[in-house]
Amino acid sequence: MIRLSEIPTTPPTELDKDVIHDATKQLRKRLAKLQHLMYAERKYSLLVILQGMDASGKDGATRDVFGACSPSGIHVKSFKKPTEEEFAHDFLWRIHKNVPHKGMIQVFNRSHYEDVLIQRVHGWITEEHAQKRIQSINAFEELLQYDNDTIILKFYLHISREKQQEELQERLDEEDKHWKHNPRDWEEAKHWDEYMRCYEEAINQSTIPWHIVPVDKRWYRDYCIAKVTVEALEKLPMELPVLEE
Amino acid sequence: MIRLSEIPTTPPTELDKDVIHDATKQLRKRLAKLQHLMYAERKYSLLVILQGMDASGKDGATRDVFGACSPSGIHVKSFKKPTEEEFAHDFLWRIHKNVPHKGMIQVFNRSHYEDVLIQRVHGWITEEHAQKRIQSINAFEELLQYDNDTIILKFYLHISREKQQEELQERLDEEDKHWKHNPRDWEEAKHWDEYMRCYEEAINQSTIPWHIVPVDKRWYRDYCIAKVTVEALEKLPMELPVLEE
Repeated sequence: MIRLSEIPTTPPTELDKDVIHDATKQLRKRLAKLQHLMYAERKYSLLVILQGMDASGKDGATRDVFGACSPSGIHVKSFKKPTEEEFAHDFLWRIHKNVPHKGMIQVFNRSHYEDVLIQRVHGWITEEHAQKRIQSINAFEELLQYDNDTIILKFYLHISREKQQEELQERLDEEDKHWKHNPRDWEEAKHWDEYMRCYEEAINQSTIPWHIVPVDKRWYRDYCIAKVTVEALEKLPMELPVLEE
Repeated sequence: MIRLSEIPTTPPTELDKDVIHDATKQLRKRLAKLQHLMYAERKYSLLVILQGMDASGKDGATRDVFGACSPSGIHVKSFKKPTEEEFAHDFLWRIHKNVPHKGMIQVFNRSHYEDVLIQRVHGWITEEHAQKRIQSINAFEELLQYDNDTIILKFYLHISREKQQEELQERLDEEDKHWKHNPRDWEEAKHWDEYMRCYEEAINQSTIPWHIVPVDKRWYRDYCIAKVTVEALEKLPMELPVLEE
């Protein structure tokens, strides 16, 4: 049972930033090689789910961890507010359309978990409805695993409230970050405790375990995500296809 | 627990063909009105799943039952052999993309059930895999119901082996039916008993009950499907939207 408030948002103090940074560089290279192998074999696929509060660094993690992968073998999908057409379907409809093809890496920047987070925090769905959705999510993710050999890695980008405020403020103060500013982020931030409760429930009720990533230091965030991803792919018995006679 | 061999494939003998035929006409009209209401309100949607052995009359039922509905409000999707892209995803991927938008009727001519029928009959998946798929189907259908107010009606078109042979022979003998002839249908027909076993299991393990429709007489097939459909839609508290001040 995970309690987010008991998990640090900063790296272990004994770690050296430069050493970790170099390790991440190596991991990025190994990841690119593994991706090439997966792409060539077209047997497995990888779904990476990035969730976290505003300014927790989902975009940055995507760039810094997966930036060495060939764009041919990776798709990134950011889930925003559903369109009218998406709202006219069940919540997993738009998600299912975007799951990875065999051989591909798919990164979800936000995901179906929003439908048991923001919707729940604001009371747009009942608690009973939220519970049903959590069960549907588990069934859906299991399906991707057993029926299409999809590896699912879920990362909760764990940011402190103070660091979030800092980051949001920077978006106002620094001109080259203005494009990221959204006044609604400040509104959402006021619901912090309720978000934490909903995240904890979603995480604790999930069949596939989550990785809680301390993200107050970006260098440690990138290292953690890269390490988990490389280790997961290295466990797969992947092989380059050989020529048939 | 349903045993298909104990259910007749012909209508009750006391029924009069002409009387039933007239009743079906009336049902078609009511169905068109209900469809209009559903389309205008955009709250509910209807998913009709037609399954049955080759020549059991899925195309005919679609035409004869839903032919009076406005094409704006109804889509028909026939699921054939999966494409290469579909095969590179889980079996529900192509199905989920085609579930109805709020306000719409969607007819599936064949469906996700093929993935626990033909694939199982030919041993392309293990029995354990088939069991997992049946559980996934139940979870998927429940999702459509609770999260998008989709009504799901599942019809098994129950044809006798003799009638099937007759129908397949007609496709060879009558020139205007040649286009329907497919030599593989004769091959599949040899697996009759195995298909019956797999159909029975799929039907009996389904959370949403199936309607078993005797189809040896087309006029009774159309009547049964139309009646179940109209009655299901009439239960919905649908209303034409009113102008807001």
